[in-house]
Amino acid sequence: MTDPVLLISGASFKEDERARLAEAYPATFVDGPDAMSGVPEGQRRAIRAVAYKGHKPFGGAEMDLFPNLGVIANYGVGYDAIDVAAASARGIKVTNTPDVLSDDVADLAVAMLLAQARTMRLGEAHVRSGDWAKKGELPLNRKVSGSTVGIVGLGRIGREIADRLAAFKMEIHYHSRSEKETPGWTYHADPARLAGAVDFLVVALVGGSATEGYVSKEVIDAMGPRGVLVNISRGTTVDEGALLDALEEGRIGGAGLDVFLNEPNLDPRFLKLENVVLQPHQGSGSVETRRDMALLQLANVRAFLEGAALPTAVN
Amino acid sequence: MTDPVLLISGASFKEDERARLAEAYPATFVDGPDAMSGVPEGQRRAIRAVAYKGHKPFGGAEMDLFPNLGVIANYGVGYDAIDVAAASARGIKVTNTPDVLSDDVADLAVAMLLAQARTMRLGEAHVRSGDWAKKGELPLNRKVSGSTVGIVGLGRIGREIADRLAAFKMEIHYHSRSEKETPGWTYHADPARLAGAVDFLVVALVGGSATEGYVSKEVIDAMGPRGVLVNISRGTTVDEGALLDALEEGRIGGAGLDVFLNEPNLDPRFLKLENVVLQPHQGSGSVETRRDMALLQLANVRAFLEGAALPTAVN
Repeated sequence: MTDPVLLISGASFKEDERARLAEAYPATFVDGPDAMSGVPEGQRRAIRAVAYKGHKPFGGAEMDLFPNLGVIANYGVGYDAIDVAAASARGIKVTNTPDVLSDDVADLAVAMLLAQARTMRLGEAHVRSGDWAKKGELPLNRKVSGSTVGIVGLGRIGREIADRLAAFKMEIHYHSRSEKETPGWTYHADPARLAGAVDFLVVALVGGSATEGYVSKEVIDAMGPRGVLVNISRGTTVDEGALLDALEEGRIGGAGLDVFLNEPNLDPRFLKLENVVLQPHQGSGSVETRRDMALLQLANVRAFLEGAALPTAVN
Repeated sequence: MTDPVLLISGASFKEDERARLAEAYPATFVDGPDAMSGVPEGQRRAIRAVAYKGHKPFGGAEMDLFPNLGVIANYGVGYDAIDVAAASARGIKVTNTPDVLSDDVADLAVAMLLAQARTMRLGEAHVRSGDWAKKGELPLNRKVSGSTVGIVGLGRIGREIADRLAAFKMEIHYHSRSEKETPGWTYHADPARLAGAVDFLVVALVGGSATEGYVSKEVIDAMGPRGVLVNISRGTTVDEGALLDALEEGRIGGAGLDVFLNEPNLDPRFLKLENVVLQPHQGSGSVETRRDMALLQLANVRAFLEGAALPTAVN
């Protein structure tokens, strides 16, 4: 048997994704970083690439298990689970899968915003109760078109969201580290000022320690009782305790959330809320996009093993 | 007591809407056309305007109850409940409330399309079950951005829908009585050909007898097993039996429906379906839009009673 050059790490890899990787290169598989030390030492020495999927921390200690590791190819645009500084210090390249998922994530952000404003959960329950005739009309809800939205983090995904919402005649405001070239969108240097200026606040930050709790209690409080928060980034970017307090006390209008701090074990307080749309981190979860992500991950592994330029390196 | 000049007809008028109308002009109220003959004859003779809301037929027989009736001001853009030919024959003007609701209806159409494609109902149930960790990832769903949509009926609302979906990088196809000026959208003279050429089919026809069953069994069958139908127009525009058959047998992919043939008493077969998003005819149901509709209805009544040009006459 040939020694594996590729370690596939991630219990969440679909069968076809794993099979595609394992067909491309001699490979071995582990559930995640915790299991990496269980790979026999001879095999570990042969590993030159890791195809990674998941949210468990992949740090320097795990990297040191593989003395000939040259690339960690992440499945997903967010690589906050991987200690990039530790990788760089060891001469290990890290890659991700940007762009191919931006459309899907932006689509879900817009969908959650619309669903929350137009009380679609309530509408669906109204119809499915079988009592529409008896219950009469749904209580009126909130107009989206023509309102004002604030995007927190105007990266690739943030821009896709803004481009879509502009077609709803929405006034686009944003916050990012610095002002950017935009088609006349309004920049706010302070995220709380942004929150106070808009009807809807959409969080599209990168994850990682630099943005932990970035949407703070102060930002949430600035949204006001009609403000609606949409988060499609990472659970870490929002002060989740402050968000839950504000939602429970009606101090903000509602939320559309695809990501949570301890997902998939989310805080049970969320399940009691009616003023939220909850999705199971499925922003990039279409058949088409997941295939594109898997192919881009493999393309990064292949480029490295063949000595070519990495398509989407992050360090 | 002054004789009423305004008849407010519609059990579905909200209290504040009724109050606004009754404050503007001496008025009397009935639940709908069935109750009009119950208005005392002396009052009937005084009535010069009807402010109408509802879906019950308002025909020549009811109009003849009011010998001095000059205008029927409908609340809503769709005036298929009112026999316009009968009104015209009696010299009665009919008005509606176009434009002010197009944004809301288009927003809900886009929201239902996204919700159906991205299996948001399933996602919400997945999270709210409390078993996300045990159940694992949601099954993958369907990418919207970059796909192809067909709009059936490119009037004011159809255009608003197309403009929004264009921002999702969707290829826009459409069918209408004749080809229209568009930014390069693809015209289909035949609705079944349109249905066969697209991933999503959105019905934005006017109601009334001319479009009854326009989205026929043939059109529905042409959509194919992945096709998704969205209807925000009227229940009458779609062959509902054929649609239910196709949904039950999985011959089309799914649907997002805000309107039904016998709403609010919709066919119970709908309630058994999982591949549909169901909304209770709330396309124009935001606080902001309903206020604008009520104000435009009142503006039409006022213009008539003051002898001014009607803002939005349909005959």
